[in-house]
Amino acid sequence: MTDLLSRRHFLAATGGLVAGGLVRPVRAATTPRKVIVDADIGVDDTMALLMVHFAPEVEIVGITTVNGNGTLANTTRNALFLAEKFGINAPVAKGAGISLDNRSETAPTFIHGDNAMGNIVLPTHINRTVDARPAWRMIVDMVRAHPHEITILGLGRLTNLALALRHDPTIADLTKEVIVMGGGFGLHGDLGNVTPAAEANFKGDPLAADIACGASWPMTIVGVDVTFQTTMNDAYLRTIRDQGGAGSGLIWDVTRFYMAFHKQRLGLDSMYVNDASASAYLLRPDLFKTRRGAVRVVCGGVADGESILKPAGKHFPASAWDNRPEQAICGDVDADGVRTLFAQIIRGH
Amino acid sequence: MTDLLSRRHFLAATGGLVAGGLVRPVRAATTPRKVIVDADIGVDDTMALLMVHFAPEVEIVGITTVNGNGTLANTTRNALFLAEKFGINAPVAKGAGISLDNRSETAPTFIHGDNAMGNIVLPTHINRTVDARPAWRMIVDMVRAHPHEITILGLGRLTNLALALRHDPTIADLTKEVIVMGGGFGLHGDLGNVTPAAEANFKGDPLAADIACGASWPMTIVGVDVTFQTTMNDAYLRTIRDQGGAGSGLIWDVTRFYMAFHKQRLGLDSMYVNDASASAYLLRPDLFKTRRGAVRVVCGGVADGESILKPAGKHFPASAWDNRPEQAICGDVDADGVRTLFAQIIRGH
Repeated sequence: MTDLLSRRHFLAATGGLVAGGLVRPVRAATTPRKVIVDADIGVDDTMALLMVHFAPEVEIVGITTVNGNGTLANTTRNALFLAEKFGINAPVAKGAGISLDNRSETAPTFIHGDNAMGNIVLPTHINRTVDARPAWRMIVDMVRAHPHEITILGLGRLTNLALALRHDPTIADLTKEVIVMGGGFGLHGDLGNVTPAAEANFKGDPLAADIACGASWPMTIVGVDVTFQTTMNDAYLRTIRDQGGAGSGLIWDVTRFYMAFHKQRLGLDSMYVNDASASAYLLRPDLFKTRRGAVRVVCGGVADGESILKPAGKHFPASAWDNRPEQAICGDVDADGVRTLFAQIIRGH
Repeated sequence: MTDLLSRRHFLAATGGLVAGGLVRPVRAATTPRKVIVDADIGVDDTMALLMVHFAPEVEIVGITTVNGNGTLANTTRNALFLAEKFGINAPVAKGAGISLDNRSETAPTFIHGDNAMGNIVLPTHINRTVDARPAWRMIVDMVRAHPHEITILGLGRLTNLALALRHDPTIADLTKEVIVMGGGFGLHGDLGNVTPAAEANFKGDPLAADIACGASWPMTIVGVDVTFQTTMNDAYLRTIRDQGGAGSGLIWDVTRFYMAFHKQRLGLDSMYVNDASASAYLLRPDLFKTRRGAVRVVCGGVADGESILKPAGKHFPASAWDNRPEQAICGDVDADGVRTLFAQIIRGH
């Protein structure tokens, strides 16, 4: 157990109130919330993962990997690297390399670098190894072992979640909550980032996203119309680096390549806070406005991967949204609140 | 020539400045703007048609009909009825009864009534008859006869416009402007009215809409996210009726059934101003905010008929929006301004 983990568990045990020490009260004084992080790690996934790891009220009980921001081999290696470096003792299970409809593996190296960690130098050897189970099996096992206690934080395409549902549909009603970064719902006009209609995670496996959004678990979707509202610039990230905290140096290092992408390809002086916005929702839902409604994800055609909300209470003739569960869709966000929260957690006090 | 037409032409000739009479200056003092109204008349089409007819700065040079709010037979009959009743001397040409992809004819009688005029009693005989040409041919002829002078106001599905483009692609560069009511672009979350993704005009012929939006003519799209912002209630419509003006009684009569639909099916105490919002844009574009970008319309799947904007200046990888012309998309609207404009025009002074 690392010093970091010791501190975290101490915080949980004491409720964060240490004489002469901590100023931020810890919400969950006794039992941390059990979270499986399903991710295609990834620069912004790294930030999102560290955010929940260092949040005292969360216990990461599993990490499952998927193709997306890097090849499955790279995203899995990155998960093992982060787990080892930061003492995340949860098992890491390797997930899906291709989508449910057999789309080829992708790796947008111009965004996340050749190693999907912004081309930082990674150790040549990592001691941590993957769990023997495929990701979907670990999700099913954990949800069944801890009924109504597991939250799944989905930061990549939702293939593993859909496979878990396919193998055991009963997990939908046994999962405490699902929070995903994906899709886009047109707020302020934003539907997507990889096409004008679609966001990368949903576009990477539209069928999986449609299955996950249609399951009866309570789901909250943080789309690009939300993540686009929260940006971080170099001045902010420099402050994160300089204020210290176990993850602060790595966050600066991994974001160099990602920031350059935002500047060169998107003409922006700051980066979108994609996955970490979902972590922020998990920790502080009060920072977000939400709407409710049934969601479909388009499979095929020019809108391939688009998420479409049927707002609750709005009347339409019979449609493909009927008999789908209502989910929560994030809308406007307190961006300053998200940045402050991230800084506090990484700083560690 | 009716009294109404005489007054309108007199206004055009005098610039609207009549001693002791008119208070509203007329913008186009000499040559009225030539407009073809392509419509599936229809309750709200009636309001939209009368709005441009009574606007002194507009000359309706043609009316083309299409299936949509009623059967093609009914929408064509309604066009002839209105042309005769209000002295619109422009030719009326019958258009398309089915979509480019052969979808069946529709008639949502629960919205527009069995006769698509809110079930008001119509004359048993109408003297006016249709032009010998199909609608697409009349559009082509008029645009070629008056290069860079014709504005097309599209209030229904865009089948006639797409057929005109197919038969003579050169009209795209010879048309002054195209203004259509159709689609929806997610502003305030609204994408559609017949499905959560799609608006009725675009859903009625998605391929035609995609063709029309992809043509090189300057096009402005007034979607449901705009028309939903402007409503009219019975108090307002009663004022329209009581203030007089040639169309005021008919507007009250045709809206009775339509208002009941809004109340019973949508739970609203007012009606959406759909087609008349496009007329308002034609007359007073300053009442609207617009964005620009390439537009695709989805053909097939759950999002069938959805319009999707690629906002100008926003970066995406290569996509189905590339090499499409930028069009203008209406956003927020001054709803009070639209209502005031409509009342002024119908009142006639």
